[in-house]
Amino acid sequence: MVSKRCYDLGTARSVIRELFEYGNARAREVGPDRVFDFSIGNPSVPPPQAALDELARLIREEDPLKLHGYTSAQGDLAVREKLSASLRRRFGHSYGPDDLYLTVGAAAALCCVFHGLTEAPGDEFIVFAPYFPEYKVFIEGAGAVPVILPPHLPDFQIDLAAVEAAIGPRTKGVLINSPNNPAGAVYTPQTLTALSELLTRKSRELGRPIYLISDEPYREIVYDGAVTPWAPDFYPNTIVCYSYSKSLSLPGERLGYVLVGSEAENAPAVYAAVAGAGRTLGYVNAPSLFQRLCAACDGLTADLSVYAKNRRLLTDGLGQLGFDTSLPPAGTFYYFLPTLEPDDVAFCERAKSLDLLLVPGSGFGVSGYARLSFCVPTERIQGALEVFGKLAKEYGR
Amino acid sequence: MVSKRCYDLGTARSVIRELFEYGNARAREVGPDRVFDFSIGNPSVPPPQAALDELARLIREEDPLKLHGYTSAQGDLAVREKLSASLRRRFGHSYGPDDLYLTVGAAAALCCVFHGLTEAPGDEFIVFAPYFPEYKVFIEGAGAVPVILPPHLPDFQIDLAAVEAAIGPRTKGVLINSPNNPAGAVYTPQTLTALSELLTRKSRELGRPIYLISDEPYREIVYDGAVTPWAPDFYPNTIVCYSYSKSLSLPGERLGYVLVGSEAENAPAVYAAVAGAGRTLGYVNAPSLFQRLCAACDGLTADLSVYAKNRRLLTDGLGQLGFDTSLPPAGTFYYFLPTLEPDDVAFCERAKSLDLLLVPGSGFGVSGYARLSFCVPTERIQGALEVFGKLAKEYGR
Repeated sequence: MVSKRCYDLGTARSVIRELFEYGNARAREVGPDRVFDFSIGNPSVPPPQAALDELARLIREEDPLKLHGYTSAQGDLAVREKLSASLRRRFGHSYGPDDLYLTVGAAAALCCVFHGLTEAPGDEFIVFAPYFPEYKVFIEGAGAVPVILPPHLPDFQIDLAAVEAAIGPRTKGVLINSPNNPAGAVYTPQTLTALSELLTRKSRELGRPIYLISDEPYREIVYDGAVTPWAPDFYPNTIVCYSYSKSLSLPGERLGYVLVGSEAENAPAVYAAVAGAGRTLGYVNAPSLFQRLCAACDGLTADLSVYAKNRRLLTDGLGQLGFDTSLPPAGTFYYFLPTLEPDDVAFCERAKSLDLLLVPGSGFGVSGYARLSFCVPTERIQGALEVFGKLAKEYGR
Repeated sequence: MVSKRCYDLGTARSVIRELFEYGNARAREVGPDRVFDFSIGNPSVPPPQAALDELARLIREEDPLKLHGYTSAQGDLAVREKLSASLRRRFGHSYGPDDLYLTVGAAAALCCVFHGLTEAPGDEFIVFAPYFPEYKVFIEGAGAVPVILPPHLPDFQIDLAAVEAAIGPRTKGVLINSPNNPAGAVYTPQTLTALSELLTRKSRELGRPIYLISDEPYREIVYDGAVTPWAPDFYPNTIVCYSYSKSLSLPGERLGYVLVGSEAENAPAVYAAVAGAGRTLGYVNAPSLFQRLCAACDGLTADLSVYAKNRRLLTDGLGQLGFDTSLPPAGTFYYFLPTLEPDDVAFCERAKSLDLLLVPGSGFGVSGYARLSFCVPTERIQGALEVFGKLAKEYGR
């Protein structure tokens, strides 16, 4: 008597959420210091002090009626002016306020793009494994089909031959997520150049653009002085989806954007379709107070040194225990660790019996790996390494 | 090359938004005190001081990592406990935290309900004119069909014979909005009793419940000591959609909820489908800071005396000018005024030429009326009455 698809989605919690809730329950049982929960990507460092100061200032000084009032559906104009100026400063191009559509986080941004680009049921979006599992939910929700390509191992760059084979008359877009959740890979300029050449050629063959949808919530979370290449530099028909959840440690406040640069083909139509999708999905405007906050704080990040430290501790510690840490994440706060047996679900179950909570890679479309979210207090890493030691011993390491 | 429906929705702004943007442009031309804009329902009184104090306190005292972090998809448990306790205090019943699904405003709440209840394309929801025009967008977005019934004149209660005739095998729900935007009507206990009897009988005939979807963003905005009847008291299969936008003057912050009381048939399945719909639409969680704020402030309202005063001024002033003010709004901050000629669009165009911005009733499915949003500074009403006088004179009053 209800939508079967919605009912199924509402009853089957995601693997990650399931594990997270288990961890909470288990912590109440045995104590929080006995459970080593690496399940969920909830930032563990507070927002930057400048953002907290700005939040306090906004509330103290601004007219509450305006601050908490409706904004234009695409976002407050002054906010979009500030953000587009910040993007111009950081990435060049000629971005203006009308290229930006502010959203209730990156999930909303992606949903608006998938709905906006899907002309007819059965249209396709190419997704690379490993991938954030909600991509499938969002694409199918738009009536489209996710075409999931196997991973390029061991570096998690892109298998261009597979992309070429997968592109067909129904292909509307290619979704990338770099830095990648869960693999931690950052696409190199070489990868993006090659992908752009392929998409340009294929678009010409099809007689219409294949859009590159670049989901970038981890854009600023990169290590060892790396910089995430700016996808629109490589391929003009790029639609950028961004979220402030990770960079500013504000995941609950739901603020992000869709950027459709004027260099993209049919940019006005794409922008209009994204905005229309937002309207039909019930997104009236992105939360107004945090629109103002993010406009003032664009480009800032929370203190990422904690993540860098955790990453180093894991690389060193797990390596010493016999795990394969030859490819530490270039970005994000996820470690995608080869498991000590091919069956990653069995491996993670064994870890779970030791109160060590890891997400099986098969939940992201790639078996033989486990994802560790290392956005946790550093003490938890240190304690967890002991348990990882026990686990390694069970596998004879 | 994009979704035609989304493109159309993204390019055709709503009549109200169109008029509002025109008013802004016109104010820059002739000065804001020369434009009498009654187009948009943006609250004109600030949030209650207690809410502003609580907002400042939350930011000052709470751990920012928790305050701005992800919550459960259905909303923070402590928040849902507080809200359900508040609902029990105010309305009785046995509401608990698991009956509440927090949403990004009432628009999101409605979208989740329509998507959750629609089993197959072509399922129907009954809507009463006059109606908020986005209802049509939301229902069609779920793949369902809005069945729009003509108004019950002159009191804008419900024409039961029309409902009876409209209910068929595809009817999934009946949408009510009391207090009503734009008519200002509040359904009486008699109306709700009769509607409940009809729906109970029809549900029995169909062998499954027809749900009553009660959209209540104006619940607390009623006049002359009136109280909005609580729809679930009359019909147990009621799904309540609520928003804090109007009651707390926080429309830009997007906070609301869906309430599925356990007394509703198949409540767990309906709740799961609503939550699943939220997931597929990209609603990760309702904004976390304002979840906490609304939990602390549920039941409070902004200072409604300004709206009461504006309503009184309009009733007296317009009545003296020869307008029909025999049915002032019982609730909301909208006046639904019979126009001085049958063609309400022509009437509103004539008003617009005097810089008096009213929304034609036909935009809400009922011609012969104009909507005035009187959530405006009281001075604007006083100035506008002069212009209304000129307009009345043009019609020989």
